[in-house]
Amino acid sequence: MVELSRADLHVSVWDPVATSMNFLNEVAGRYPDAISLAAGRPYDGFYSVDDVERYLRIYLDHLRAEGRTEEQVRGMLLQYGRTNGQLGALIARMLDVDHGVQVPAESVMVTAGCQEAMVIALRALCAGPDDVLLAVEPCYVGMTGAARILGVEVVPVPEGADGLDPATVTAVARRVRAAGKRPRALYVVPNFANPSGVSMPVPTRRRLLEVAAEQDLLVFEDDPYGLFGLDDEPHPTLKSLDVNGSVVYLGSFAKSCFPGARVGFLVADQVVVDDAGRRTLLAEEMSAIKSMLTVNTSPIAQAVIGGVLVESGCSLRAANRDKIEFYRHNLRTLLTALEEHFPPAERERHGVRWNVPSGGFFVVVEVPFPADEKLLQVSAERHGVLWTPMSFFYQDGGHHALRLSCSYLEPDRIREGVRRLSRLITETA
Amino acid sequence: MVELSRADLHVSVWDPVATSMNFLNEVAGRYPDAISLAAGRPYDGFYSVDDVERYLRIYLDHLRAEGRTEEQVRGMLLQYGRTNGQLGALIARMLDVDHGVQVPAESVMVTAGCQEAMVIALRALCAGPDDVLLAVEPCYVGMTGAARILGVEVVPVPEGADGLDPATVTAVARRVRAAGKRPRALYVVPNFANPSGVSMPVPTRRRLLEVAAEQDLLVFEDDPYGLFGLDDEPHPTLKSLDVNGSVVYLGSFAKSCFPGARVGFLVADQVVVDDAGRRTLLAEEMSAIKSMLTVNTSPIAQAVIGGVLVESGCSLRAANRDKIEFYRHNLRTLLTALEEHFPPAERERHGVRWNVPSGGFFVVVEVPFPADEKLLQVSAERHGVLWTPMSFFYQDGGHHALRLSCSYLEPDRIREGVRRLSRLITETA
Repeated sequence: MVELSRADLHVSVWDPVATSMNFLNEVAGRYPDAISLAAGRPYDGFYSVDDVERYLRIYLDHLRAEGRTEEQVRGMLLQYGRTNGQLGALIARMLDVDHGVQVPAESVMVTAGCQEAMVIALRALCAGPDDVLLAVEPCYVGMTGAARILGVEVVPVPEGADGLDPATVTAVARRVRAAGKRPRALYVVPNFANPSGVSMPVPTRRRLLEVAAEQDLLVFEDDPYGLFGLDDEPHPTLKSLDVNGSVVYLGSFAKSCFPGARVGFLVADQVVVDDAGRRTLLAEEMSAIKSMLTVNTSPIAQAVIGGVLVESGCSLRAANRDKIEFYRHNLRTLLTALEEHFPPAERERHGVRWNVPSGGFFVVVEVPFPADEKLLQVSAERHGVLWTPMSFFYQDGGHHALRLSCSYLEPDRIREGVRRLSRLITETA
Repeated sequence: MVELSRADLHVSVWDPVATSMNFLNEVAGRYPDAISLAAGRPYDGFYSVDDVERYLRIYLDHLRAEGRTEEQVRGMLLQYGRTNGQLGALIARMLDVDHGVQVPAESVMVTAGCQEAMVIALRALCAGPDDVLLAVEPCYVGMTGAARILGVEVVPVPEGADGLDPATVTAVARRVRAAGKRPRALYVVPNFANPSGVSMPVPTRRRLLEVAAEQDLLVFEDDPYGLFGLDDEPHPTLKSLDVNGSVVYLGSFAKSCFPGARVGFLVADQVVVDDAGRRTLLAEEMSAIKSMLTVNTSPIAQAVIGGVLVESGCSLRAANRDKIEFYRHNLRTLLTALEEHFPPAERERHGVRWNVPSGGFFVVVEVPFPADEKLLQVSAERHGVLWTPMSFFYQDGGHHALRLSCSYLEPDRIREGVRRLSRLITETA
């Protein structure tokens, strides 16, 4: 019988990122009663299974109201359909309503979750062996993982307390160019980043876009948490500030609707010119890649998300009022629990500190000892609490920090999780 | 404003395959009244939009009947879920019922259509720059396109009237090895292939599997049309004959259910051994790749397909009785119409011939003149009929042949399409 050697399979199967994620899942599986401050998945208590049928009907009625025949509606739900999907107009309207971003419907591609959007944007731009992606570090593993699948080199740009520093981006881009490579794009999560929780101030955002233009970089803006700020202060997307047309926007419905749809999108309204001078939109060119990855995004799944958009008047902000409050309360609960267990004197004594994000799902705690897989194992077994080693998000770094997530738990469990974590920390420090 | 050069984007955006497919779509768009013998999409008249809700309910009731709580059912529909999906057990049972194939549920990965299954299988196996895919030629563009996205070299293995010749596979594999490369896998559609319509006799299938073992090749078996034979004679899958464990089976629900679900699967029950001697299944290792492409397959879409499987007792053959009759009637109609317009004497006079597939959606017509894009344009404009140049499916070849598809049209339209085609041929020959 055929036996394959694991080392003979593609690097993405056995590299450290895959191994780390497997380890995390494995620990979570072995200690099902541990409180998970590791999982960043959204809370699903705002929906019932009946909502799926309801959204489906709302969308189908919307198609009928737009004048489509029953046969056309059937085709839109059951057939292959356009490679770039059928929600372009609704998503473009949502971007205008929620973010003040005006883009043509044709610049929107609906994807099989934001993950596929990352793969497609990366594949389109990083075309040759010298094309390099710059990426904020610490970095969401979905982006580095997508690059590994495609064999694209990722050069990290270290993040500060205020997110990416545009001057650092310039320095890294120059260094890459000096080494004979071409930096094609920069990946960044400007709002409440995963994993760091940090956000970029508005002036820094504007400066980053100038740097992108100077350095001939596209910016891949990933914004899954933008709605979930602690206050109502607007956090303008890079896309809304983008006077030069540098930003490819990567969108997710996993947090603003639900992950089970597996619908995301990208906006690529850049103009592409061919040898004959013909002009198209980047999203339209990218459809050749999408067609060879997944053909198109499940029309049934698109219809469900379409229903959410139609019902809310294309405002995810409006559709998410309850969820925004829930996540705010959770983040405040997490930060308050950390304060309670580590008042200033204790914090100093144990050498512990953490950042105070202005929104989102994540907080980073720095500790004076290695927060590695070994410690995670101890934490799960003896203390019944899980978290994510920050080193998972670095090429080499983050060894003394851990990421806490507060998206999925009820407040009581967050408090209990932090209590358990405080015991681990005081015992280990 | 940013302007990108098309030549600076990835090759998959502007290479001949992408350009050809664009051309085909463009012509179809410009001549909406032309009869399309080009489109291979399934007929959707067997379903109504209400079926989607019905299948969804059947699957959710199935989950409840298996003892899951309402909260668990909600999580399975709305949350991320397992990377490899939740239909493993139902699909494994279907493979047993319909094909006599016994595999563990853990060897099944549910994918975002069969297209993603191709990308994942290819990425897992073709790991290094010298790893090469052998592929039957003419070849379905989804497979060659997937290879281009990943930068994997494809070496064609020419197909004969009885499909792949195992001796040719051996010769090509040896030649590739002599050139310092490693043939890792062989892509083949043994039943009613797309685009050629040909099928492999059973003894040839057995011999092909011996060759795969001798040449240390995995076989990627793609079988979207296997159910749709002209008679009830069984067409055993390679997987069912696979005593050595060489076959990775690529499955589609687009034809047996409907494309709008965008659900496919792969079966990879090969054992993978790591340095420490730990043994896993290939499908489990492949989940690291799946997680970086689409995270998981839309659980909502999975639930709809799950409903089809539950309702039919996990027999797509049973679920497809009407469709099988429909497609048989269509293929017979197409073949009869060709006979009528080109009786033997006419056939000889015009230098026209075609193959007579024993099932599936496709027939190949050979003509004594180039069946190229220029002729397709003439065909659409003057004769109102579309077809696919066979050259689209070759690296270099198929210049005097065209593919006819009979899957989507009602029989009357097929007859009219062939009548129009016959005028094109007699006018051009």
